[in-house]
Amino acid sequence: MSRQDQKRNKVTLLDVAKHADVSRATASLVVRKSPLVGAETRERVEAAMRELGYVYNMGAARLRAERSHTIGVVVPNLTNPFFAELLGGMEASVDAAGLVMIIANSGDGPPRQAAVLQRLREHGVDGIILCPAAGTPDDLASKVSDWKLPVVQALRHVTDDIDYAGVDYAAGMEEAVEYLVSLGHQAICFAVHGPVHSAYHERVQGFRESMKRFSLKPDLVIRVPDRVDQIAKEADALFAQGRVPSAVICFNDLVAHGLAAGFYDRGLRIGRDISLIGFDDVADAEAMRPRLTSVSTSPSEIGHNAVALLLERIAQPSLPPRCWISATKLHIRDSCSPLSSS
Amino acid sequence: MSRQDQKRNKVTLLDVAKHADVSRATASLVVRKSPLVGAETRERVEAAMRELGYVYNMGAARLRAERSHTIGVVVPNLTNPFFAELLGGMEASVDAAGLVMIIANSGDGPPRQAAVLQRLREHGVDGIILCPAAGTPDDLASKVSDWKLPVVQALRHVTDDIDYAGVDYAAGMEEAVEYLVSLGHQAICFAVHGPVHSAYHERVQGFRESMKRFSLKPDLVIRVPDRVDQIAKEADALFAQGRVPSAVICFNDLVAHGLAAGFYDRGLRIGRDISLIGFDDVADAEAMRPRLTSVSTSPSEIGHNAVALLLERIAQPSLPPRCWISATKLHIRDSCSPLSSS
Repeated sequence: MSRQDQKRNKVTLLDVAKHADVSRATASLVVRKSPLVGAETRERVEAAMRELGYVYNMGAARLRAERSHTIGVVVPNLTNPFFAELLGGMEASVDAAGLVMIIANSGDGPPRQAAVLQRLREHGVDGIILCPAAGTPDDLASKVSDWKLPVVQALRHVTDDIDYAGVDYAAGMEEAVEYLVSLGHQAICFAVHGPVHSAYHERVQGFRESMKRFSLKPDLVIRVPDRVDQIAKEADALFAQGRVPSAVICFNDLVAHGLAAGFYDRGLRIGRDISLIGFDDVADAEAMRPRLTSVSTSPSEIGHNAVALLLERIAQPSLPPRCWISATKLHIRDSCSPLSSS
Repeated sequence: MSRQDQKRNKVTLLDVAKHADVSRATASLVVRKSPLVGAETRERVEAAMRELGYVYNMGAARLRAERSHTIGVVVPNLTNPFFAELLGGMEASVDAAGLVMIIANSGDGPPRQAAVLQRLREHGVDGIILCPAAGTPDDLASKVSDWKLPVVQALRHVTDDIDYAGVDYAAGMEEAVEYLVSLGHQAICFAVHGPVHSAYHERVQGFRESMKRFSLKPDLVIRVPDRVDQIAKEADALFAQGRVPSAVICFNDLVAHGLAAGFYDRGLRIGRDISLIGFDDVADAEAMRPRLTSVSTSPSEIGHNAVALLLERIAQPSLPPRCWISATKLHIRDSCSPLSSS
């Protein structure tokens, strides 16, 4: 906790009342949202609360007193095993803290996300970990501030004003490109899918910039279907318009799984005729044959970080917003080979 | 609604009072759990409520009045893509009904399950869909009855006194065994994993009985690890003690995915040297190469059924317990071949 925050935590309601030049009783009515206080007085007291940081301490007091020992987690979908691993990491930390976690699926759409957030609030969760749905408006921060409810963004972010636990997607893409370049590859595709959000942009940008750094064509970004069982059929898209990629980096391991099937259907041997790199390094990467080289994003660690941020935010609501970015690590297995051997 | 239920729904508090020989006011105090009523009177009124089915109508009235429009769903784990498909089916139905769903993970353990059920109750969900954790005590029914909260069991069941939406696992195993026998296989293994519960027993029993029906050795039931990335290493267990299975039925598609890797490592070609059948037919089955023949349990349909049962239970709490069992369907793809061609 910073010195400034420590100071804030000592502010009493009496300080607020003095600062606003009202009685303690009047300040108390404002805090309790009483209709008995006139608009002008309310505004003066609220301004004093803001200036002295008193609102936040009230929130902390309320939470300390009325904690439900339940954490809400909002994820955009559950079909990618990545989310199971992320939630597993969260659960271990939540369990260790003696809490219970409830999960809601936003379906990656802002309207449903708004509905599930509203329910979680009504249900009195102590705090929320939110992987913001694609298209979440950037006024999320001011809304959350109105709620007086601790919220942490995970995996994706829409504002710098709320805690964020994520991973350095761009650095992960750089690792993948560098590795393929070290094997002699130049015609490298990036196969993407799914909704567009901060983690999507960071990956695409990371790919393009790394490719440019090696003076390679940065625009081979090809979209494939969302469902793993549909991707194989669309693997041809990688070879459209005369493209002959010798290596493909995948948006995630799900895409790698689907493309592996598509390459099999085309008679392409992974790790020999074509190199393939996944992203996330979920358990399926180890179970693929040939084993999938993949950029590990350590979903379990991100889950752990998100819970740690939330617990600290609950205990100390006045902390400045923080951003914990995990490093990626390329996990080299058997799905890539030097270009010369193809 | 049955005639008997229609009759029950017409019972008024006055009927209860008359039946118990007390005033309507006294009966009302009992319903509202007032401490002003003596134990003996309370018992008499509650007996009358039970006999006339009045408790249930009160529950319905309360629910109609105070619905939170939220459904709680308790699943044992999220790492199997089966659960993502099940939850997807539930969500479609829940969305269509204008409700919101929150999910809790019991970790397949009764203590955590008890904690999450308690939280969901406290949070005022309208009802709960529960896939009971392995080891759930069979007094679940009387507990649920105490809660006055609509509950539906899904996938697994511990009592006949609560609604159940499941699938005919035994018939699914029979389809798999019959198909392999029709291809000439006799040395058929069943590779199982995970915690033991009703759906586990039904599958194992279905396998053993089908094998016996064809006068085949029914005891080749082999356990493999829970995690997909661990299964490959343990595929050797299928060949221990001099066993030479020509075909393997898997507990689910996750096991099939892991064993496929293990067979690849042994140099066994699936659909040629050895036949492999999955169970559940999740999207991954279509994405495997060779494509995985699998017994479809239609998780999305089970999810739909569970929500339909719960919505009817909420609307008509006095319905007798029901049991909706979906049929399985063998989805033949490319992972099995006639024995002679091996």
